[in-house]
Amino acid sequence: MSAGCPDDERLARITLSRIWEPGDPHVAKALAVHGPCDLVAGLRSGSLRFDGSGALRSRLAVAHPEQDLRAAERIGARFVCPGDAEWPEPLDDLRDYERPKRDGGPSVGLWVRGGHDLAAATVRSVAIVGSRASTGYGNYVASELGTGLATRRWTVVSGAAYGVDAAAHRGSFAGDGVTVAVVACGIDVVYPRAHAALYERLVAEGLIVSEWPVGCSPMRYRFLVRNRLIAALTAGTVVVEAAARSGAINTAGHARDLARHVMAVPGPVTSGMSEGCNALLREPDVTCVRGPADVVELVGRMGEAFGDDPEHPTDARDSLDLLTRRVLDAVPLRNGAGVASIALAAGVEQREVVRCLGALFAGGFIERTDAGWRVTPPP
Amino acid sequence: MSAGCPDDERLARITLSRIWEPGDPHVAKALAVHGPCDLVAGLRSGSLRFDGSGALRSRLAVAHPEQDLRAAERIGARFVCPGDAEWPEPLDDLRDYERPKRDGGPSVGLWVRGGHDLAAATVRSVAIVGSRASTGYGNYVASELGTGLATRRWTVVSGAAYGVDAAAHRGSFAGDGVTVAVVACGIDVVYPRAHAALYERLVAEGLIVSEWPVGCSPMRYRFLVRNRLIAALTAGTVVVEAAARSGAINTAGHARDLARHVMAVPGPVTSGMSEGCNALLREPDVTCVRGPADVVELVGRMGEAFGDDPEHPTDARDSLDLLTRRVLDAVPLRNGAGVASIALAAGVEQREVVRCLGALFAGGFIERTDAGWRVTPPP
Repeated sequence: MSAGCPDDERLARITLSRIWEPGDPHVAKALAVHGPCDLVAGLRSGSLRFDGSGALRSRLAVAHPEQDLRAAERIGARFVCPGDAEWPEPLDDLRDYERPKRDGGPSVGLWVRGGHDLAAATVRSVAIVGSRASTGYGNYVASELGTGLATRRWTVVSGAAYGVDAAAHRGSFAGDGVTVAVVACGIDVVYPRAHAALYERLVAEGLIVSEWPVGCSPMRYRFLVRNRLIAALTAGTVVVEAAARSGAINTAGHARDLARHVMAVPGPVTSGMSEGCNALLREPDVTCVRGPADVVELVGRMGEAFGDDPEHPTDARDSLDLLTRRVLDAVPLRNGAGVASIALAAGVEQREVVRCLGALFAGGFIERTDAGWRVTPPP
Repeated sequence: MSAGCPDDERLARITLSRIWEPGDPHVAKALAVHGPCDLVAGLRSGSLRFDGSGALRSRLAVAHPEQDLRAAERIGARFVCPGDAEWPEPLDDLRDYERPKRDGGPSVGLWVRGGHDLAAATVRSVAIVGSRASTGYGNYVASELGTGLATRRWTVVSGAAYGVDAAAHRGSFAGDGVTVAVVACGIDVVYPRAHAALYERLVAEGLIVSEWPVGCSPMRYRFLVRNRLIAALTAGTVVVEAAARSGAINTAGHARDLARHVMAVPGPVTSGMSEGCNALLREPDVTCVRGPADVVELVGRMGEAFGDDPEHPTDARDSLDLLTRRVLDAVPLRNGAGVASIALAAGVEQREVVRCLGALFAGGFIERTDAGWRVTPPP
């Protein structure tokens, strides 16, 4: 187990990941009051009772958290939770995030597959979502957005589904970007089946993330509660193509409720697949985006600091904040170093170092080697 | 000559219609200071001099206002100017309307062809504008807007050009609506030539309006200054399809500067013909409209009062304001009556009567017969 969250809390969170369904406000309340360890202990002893605790106890009887963790580790996955350096701070916004439809609430932790640091990879990220039954137009626009954001060093977050999701991930690959798929089933479950190759590439070049432990099936409910993670992880959500009622509109609603930017791509008023987007564009807080430049213009306050021109990123060094410069100064020029050693050298908290490294990587100042982070050599 | 504006002023305005080009701020200023009669007299005597007055004097030497009027009357046209009951009050907003590009300023009067009262026909009107080189998508949307607005008893105002303009006029015809073409040449000049049939139908069922006397040719400059009339006459302007720089965007700019509603129809971000619309949709004061219902929802404060259901317009009688009800009470049930006799019966100023009649007609309360206005018989 890695440093960060204490071992007993980590095991309790893994247990909860197996027995609860995110979104349940009663469990969320019990978690907030008792914390993960006492919540699990109270459920086990029967001393803690609340709406739905019976169902949790039934699942608890057959839960095997160490086994879940070993199964994850066998496929090269890890469990990331609050307290870990890799835990994305924006997800803390979910702690007080209640929704009438019970698709809000905190996450006890995330199962993560892939070689990137989740917190660093999502520091500068945008969600691209849309219909599974997208048109050629939607696929084209999603792919162009994915590539354009990748070349501007923005991470694309989506759901690995058919249609817009897949086009966005693939577009990001085409731009040599990092892309993150947040899925609604165990990270070992390939859904849809036809996306086996996409999953392989996501593991190799990006990240696959889920709240559910290995073996869990995708369920309709899980897609909706999963959507809050896509919205929460990112600076804004772009709806590319969506019918009037659709999962993508649900994600946009999460983004709005979480005070993230909501963007929509306009489409023909004669196309049912653009109905959701064109309806969004009638709302005052939704921005019409025509391509990656419009997206970055809106979400990229950081983008300005780092310069949007991928050719000359180091020109912007002067505009880095002092903490980030301190971390940059601690990154070795030749041989790579890990987060812990950079933190020690910089005299900065590991969690802060992770955030700064993410920003520095996104800005092209540093690169990842087998031995860790190092300063990007001059061209 | 009809009642309203005094004869000498009318002749002076007809003279100005021949010798000046609307938009010239120096003439507009001289007109505001001296009034039309003294302006023409001063130009003729040479006592009035200002920037560009020489060019006006040259034209004045060959101007024949009575001849222009007779030529117009021969094709069934009339000259409508401030002071006439038929003069649309919203055009008075142009008196103080200056634009850096010199495409603003007042109109000295309008040449009008067709059987409708211009003021009444435009009380409840919307401009539909767009590219001449529109796509099938743009033509379809413009036509649907035209028909949908017509069936909701809204007048469609446009410019009789190829593409979106023509589709909007034709759509209005299909909905048995009144449609007004504001053109950039003499009202006897068919431009483009291919629109001879459209012009005939506009004269028969709608109105053709121009600032230029018979025989004047369309010129690039005139289209831009003409656009301010389209914007000023209407409650709002809808851009259906437009390239990034186009006449339709110019009209939308006039609408904004004149505090009218600006609306745009979204289109594919991959279509050059939707570039102008999608760019407009990124501006905070532009409303995304998907069809006639969205347009009427925005511009139809009156629509609420009169009910948007064309089937049951009289249900809304209770919601009419008292002045309009007074005029309605003075409209005969069987044999039609003219504006003057209705004004006498109601004890209301003729100008007010015209406005009320327009609203009542648009609401379906009254209809036009050969003998004048009468109350619409119950179905």
